[in-house]
Amino acid sequence: MESKRLEDQVSFSDEKMKKNALFDSPHLFYDAYCLLPGQSQKVHAHEGSDKVYYVARGTGCFTIGEEEADLAEGDAIIARAGVPHGVRNDSEEELVLLVTMAPRPA
Amino acid sequence: MESKRLEDQVSFSDEKMKKNALFDSPHLFYDAYCLLPGQSQKVHAHEGSDKVYYVARGTGCFTIGEEEADLAEGDAIIARAGVPHGVRNDSEEELVLLVTMAPRPA
Repeated sequence: MESKRLEDQVSFSDEKMKKNALFDSPHLFYDAYCLLPGQSQKVHAHEGSDKVYYVARGTGCFTIGEEEADLAEGDAIIARAGVPHGVRNDSEEELVLLVTMAPRPA
Repeated sequence: MESKRLEDQVSFSDEKMKKNALFDSPHLFYDAYCLLPGQSQKVHAHEGSDKVYYVARGTGCFTIGEEEADLAEGDAIIARAGVPHGVRNDSEEELVLLVTMAPRPA
């Protein structure tokens, strides 16, 4: 049975945001993104895939299209296909996100 | 900006497990499943879609294929396309799951 405890998949890198896969399939990515204070995923877009972020721990500053918002633990946000998106950890605490992307980019 | 607070999407029904959509797109479902004690999603399968459950609150007894396991807050599990899966709330507490399915069934 393929179960994972999120906290077991949490690890950080001093160099940059770390992506740790919980599950990978032909249809989707399901990852933990782990950001130390000051780290970010720069704004980018996927033409054919949606991405959903769920804040599992901490607070992140999300950019979706032209808008920015701080989201905290228990918040979720979608970046629909083609829409530029990114996230920064502007806080002084660790940030852990559960991130789904579908369809899985080739 | 399409953000949702999970707790704002949590609501239960005395009749059966409640599915509340956080996001819906051509590519995926992203739902909160809310189960009172004794409620369940019976075992079923989707031929072409994967489903990932993340336990946001409580404890659930998951069936994936021939296996069963209790998962608690912070655990995630995948039911790959074609594999029978379901979940029961055998506990005495409310159960809230974040559920992703992709690709979105027609």
